[in-house]
Amino acid sequence: MNQVIETLLGHRSIRRLEDKPLTREQIELIVASAQAASTSSYIQSYSIIGITDPAKKKKLAELAGNQNYVEKNGHFFVFCGDLHRHELAGEMENKAVKDSIESTEKFMVMLIDTALAAQNAAIAAESMGLGICYIGGIRNHLDEVCELLNTPRRVIPLFGMAVGYPEKVTDQKPRLPLSHIYHENEYEQDEAVYKQQLEEYNKVISRYYTERTKGKRDDTWTGQMAGTFEKQSRMYMHDFIKEHGLNLK
Amino acid sequence: MNQVIETLLGHRSIRRLEDKPLTREQIELIVASAQAASTSSYIQSYSIIGITDPAKKKKLAELAGNQNYVEKNGHFFVFCGDLHRHELAGEMENKAVKDSIESTEKFMVMLIDTALAAQNAAIAAESMGLGICYIGGIRNHLDEVCELLNTPRRVIPLFGMAVGYPEKVTDQKPRLPLSHIYHENEYEQDEAVYKQQLEEYNKVISRYYTERTKGKRDDTWTGQMAGTFEKQSRMYMHDFIKEHGLNLK
Repeated sequence: MNQVIETLLGHRSIRRLEDKPLTREQIELIVASAQAASTSSYIQSYSIIGITDPAKKKKLAELAGNQNYVEKNGHFFVFCGDLHRHELAGEMENKAVKDSIESTEKFMVMLIDTALAAQNAAIAAESMGLGICYIGGIRNHLDEVCELLNTPRRVIPLFGMAVGYPEKVTDQKPRLPLSHIYHENEYEQDEAVYKQQLEEYNKVISRYYTERTKGKRDDTWTGQMAGTFEKQSRMYMHDFIKEHGLNLK
Repeated sequence: MNQVIETLLGHRSIRRLEDKPLTREQIELIVASAQAASTSSYIQSYSIIGITDPAKKKKLAELAGNQNYVEKNGHFFVFCGDLHRHELAGEMENKAVKDSIESTEKFMVMLIDTALAAQNAAIAAESMGLGICYIGGIRNHLDEVCELLNTPRRVIPLFGMAVGYPEKVTDQKPRLPLSHIYHENEYEQDEAVYKQQLEEYNKVISRYYTERTKGKRDDTWTGQMAGTFEKQSRMYMHDFIKEHGLNLK
């Protein structure tokens, strides 16, 4: 196993980071790594906003649900899907680009592009001995996040990433079995098999929580998922995205 | 610069791959690396379908716009966004999960999750000396791709990834300037500056094409983008996704 795969397989989200800023060189290497990722038809449909202002970090931490590591870290990145510059490109070239920009297809491309770049950033940071944690919590109150970051129309802050020197390294949570995630030639359609795989996985997860909490928790994966999905979080997103001129047609 | 960052920065899409199959061990290491990526609230909302059947590869290559490297490679992966297993989890736990599954928020999470996993797969493959190319072309005819891969409702094949031993290594295409992609504390709102950055970048891209094609092409980035967006590709996606029970509310 090479050093790269060791880095990939060694990933865990780090939620306790030192309050020690990254250097400019570290930040630029992380961003350059992000930019080196594949991008659909070269569209590069994202922007990255680095937050250094302590007041803004504090506000973002509040908006994200009082996650302390949004405020206390080495650097906080916000990854934004961005089709604003393609609108400018249309203006510069005098071409009608609006329908495309507002399409679900381009919305999907924007999300995928941004995530590919972000994952490269995560891997680059981890390879330097830094810890990272993705912050989906910034989507709790996107209107306020957009205002705080002064984002134009056609730009959506998708998630944050706290990066820094790990203060406490946590365990890795076991993933779904490979045989459940990975299919060959076609999708496994036998629901009995599929549910049985989930039951087996539930036992693994339950054991993981029991050991980790000295018996206080014994969650299963399907239990967690059913709970998370029953909650219906961020249902405003459907209208919010449309109001920002994306995913409309 | 460490070996990981060298791998990240060394990326280029490889469109000529040898017809030499990956080993089971290589495939499993790539999938395990994909699974090690962060996943929003642990939802792991993707499945990966590996295509080995030559007839299916041929059909996929046709559907993706006759891209030869979809057929000729070491392994062809299809990355699918997957909220089907969360529907099963709801059934197993007797919880109402439908509204969440059909939300734009969870559709976004699904896209981001899948892309994070895929980028880990890409990096793992490249670290083994393999080349990769993402194939968005499978979204040209998703109805036929879904049928071919026998995917259930709430599962969307998002993109393919051809992986294999590089037959011909291509140049890297220059990315947008870091100062254009990366902002600090807030989004740069001066459109004059933003357009000027794009003009500068156009010169870089134009030079890149001129040198590479001995003067036959001198595309600019804004020209390419305006052309791509003017075309309005895959406008069926909006309805297609809804018909498959996602991005509805």
